[in-house]
Amino acid sequence: MNVARPDEVRRFNRASLLRTLHVSGPATRATLATELGLNRSTIKMLVDGLAGDGVVQERVPRVPQGAGRPSLLVLPQPQSVVVLAVDVQVEHAGIALVGLGGQILGRNSWNLRGRQRDPDEVVTHVAESAALLAQDLDLHPVAAGISVPGVVRRTDGLVHSAANLGWDEVPFGERMGTVLGVPVVVGNDAEFGALAEYVRGVGRGASDAVFVSADVGVGGGIIAQGALLRGSAGYLGEIGHMTVHPTGRTCHCGNVGCWETEVGEPALRRALGLAASGPRGAIAAELRELHRDSDPVARLGEYVDWLILGLVNVVNILGPELVVLGDLFAILPDAVVQRAREEVQRRSMVARAHGGLRIEKSSLGPDLKLLGAAEAAFEDVLSTV
Amino acid sequence: MNVARPDEVRRFNRASLLRTLHVSGPATRATLATELGLNRSTIKMLVDGLAGDGVVQERVPRVPQGAGRPSLLVLPQPQSVVVLAVDVQVEHAGIALVGLGGQILGRNSWNLRGRQRDPDEVVTHVAESAALLAQDLDLHPVAAGISVPGVVRRTDGLVHSAANLGWDEVPFGERMGTVLGVPVVVGNDAEFGALAEYVRGVGRGASDAVFVSADVGVGGGIIAQGALLRGSAGYLGEIGHMTVHPTGRTCHCGNVGCWETEVGEPALRRALGLAASGPRGAIAAELRELHRDSDPVARLGEYVDWLILGLVNVVNILGPELVVLGDLFAILPDAVVQRAREEVQRRSMVARAHGGLRIEKSSLGPDLKLLGAAEAAFEDVLSTV
Repeated sequence: MNVARPDEVRRFNRASLLRTLHVSGPATRATLATELGLNRSTIKMLVDGLAGDGVVQERVPRVPQGAGRPSLLVLPQPQSVVVLAVDVQVEHAGIALVGLGGQILGRNSWNLRGRQRDPDEVVTHVAESAALLAQDLDLHPVAAGISVPGVVRRTDGLVHSAANLGWDEVPFGERMGTVLGVPVVVGNDAEFGALAEYVRGVGRGASDAVFVSADVGVGGGIIAQGALLRGSAGYLGEIGHMTVHPTGRTCHCGNVGCWETEVGEPALRRALGLAASGPRGAIAAELRELHRDSDPVARLGEYVDWLILGLVNVVNILGPELVVLGDLFAILPDAVVQRAREEVQRRSMVARAHGGLRIEKSSLGPDLKLLGAAEAAFEDVLSTV
Repeated sequence: MNVARPDEVRRFNRASLLRTLHVSGPATRATLATELGLNRSTIKMLVDGLAGDGVVQERVPRVPQGAGRPSLLVLPQPQSVVVLAVDVQVEHAGIALVGLGGQILGRNSWNLRGRQRDPDEVVTHVAESAALLAQDLDLHPVAAGISVPGVVRRTDGLVHSAANLGWDEVPFGERMGTVLGVPVVVGNDAEFGALAEYVRGVGRGASDAVFVSADVGVGGGIIAQGALLRGSAGYLGEIGHMTVHPTGRTCHCGNVGCWETEVGEPALRRALGLAASGPRGAIAAELRELHRDSDPVARLGEYVDWLILGLVNVVNILGPELVVLGDLFAILPDAVVQRAREEVQRRSMVARAHGGLRIEKSSLGPDLKLLGAAEAAFEDVLSTV
């Protein structure tokens, strides 16, 4: 902070107010004044400006609070600021238009098989699908966030590699930006999962949290001191490729015994006695059966051991207060999660020290990455609305 | 940032200017104006204030720069702001008085054996030694930073455990604060090593760096987006206790195959064929011999493999641009470090992606933790001078 000019201060305060409404929902002017540490006349000026631009509406609260003139309730208008969220997965792609406040206003999705996984095909399909959706709903996204299961450079959206899609050095952000004509941010799927959990899920209010998820691959996103961690040169870390089993299987990355090879989808299929490939639904069905098993931990055998070992490492290295389990991890039987809680608490010096480590399943379901991609897009948008 | 009052702005700018001088050394008013983005009259006002308080001096630069009236050189006065730095190690403790600009103005040290390791003994000895040193030099430390090889809660300096010192739940920060009568910050030794490297060592200017060091134990400190990472509840992670060898030796933490058990001092002694205990000097002597060996990597056998595996994990999880090797790691033969560079680059997806990972030995020598402890103390001091 250097000496700030009045218009800079006003823009900063406007963005802060908008972010508060976006994240926490409708609030009275009085609440906003308290939360933002601004006086009521400043809040009035900012809200009047936003109302004039159609970004918020005001109304008298239905339930009166205390005596005196009621403080007006400020409601963000979802359709006033809309972003496009894109979730590219290995078997499937989805898009959504997400409004101010985080509400999904419309969506579409399709399967990705064979040629459809080609990056150019994905770019074209996303653009066409987004244009149709926007036209149907008469909405105009001002930015886009795109989740990709791969090693992504956040600065420009270069996908260095997305092994499970067969992508290699794809300038995906640039191509998407060209066809969409709006600012685009591309990120790793686990990173966006972490962001979604932090803004809208079980990670709300946690200042140090780690999100780990198993899909075909295994990834993670790290919230440290209240911000999403990014590695150097825009590359996030790859938690799935820490070595947990030096005498284990060879991973597609060239190493041996990566966490991903021990707890990713193929490993879970092995543990469940399922065929190496087949519909994802079979895994979910088998896990539902397992919920009723007398000892699901024993049934999954060493899968649980490797899951726990990786979690112990993550907790020891990063010392978070919360670990969120996503995707396939989130549909594991509760007994497995409970065992992980106990073992990580027992085996991690850091968890023993602070005593309050929580391990929770993701609460956002299949929309997780769409919501995270939307938040990534909103980050830049809210300071310029 | 809310609307800032003029006195707050001035205090913020004064602290920023002081921090720049503290970290980067003497600078002309013109340079300070450029670096801080302030105009020359603001700089003049701030420098005049600091000069009036004796914190800086000004003089005409010896080497004239360009035409016109020369910009005055602003010199921080080391003795005007002094902190006490304390480095508690397993075998040894050291203290130093460190002045503005990071210069060590005086120091003392002593061995820690048997009863001397008792926390109360350490508190008493540090306090007495610091008082004598301050009296000798006629300096008055305004804060203290204390490095401890253990799991430390930064918020209040509680040492949850320092296994190699035999400490358990010691309210060390509170006790030191009481006897010293100044604000005290206690931190983990690897954390302070990271801070020292970031401010004064090979980590200068790196926004994402990891410092890993081997002493009796193995620890790490993480710089992420230009700030020292702290875990939740004030507890930093414990990199030394990630599992790298699930079928390896039992660690004092209760787990099996921690990185610490494979690459800490006892492991290095085993690799060098030295007795399990004995003077630290024997390790250094043996490593010096090894520098001349035709194949030091082969001589150290699987020690090098475990070193590399841990580094691959750290790089994969955190994606830093720089890894700094400290303490015993810093006296390993260059051939070992070179092998680590090649292998980590080859085996880490993240390093392959951004291509520019550096692995360097610490450059600050045995004063590393003292310097880090001093910086931790200066962090709070500079905003209130």
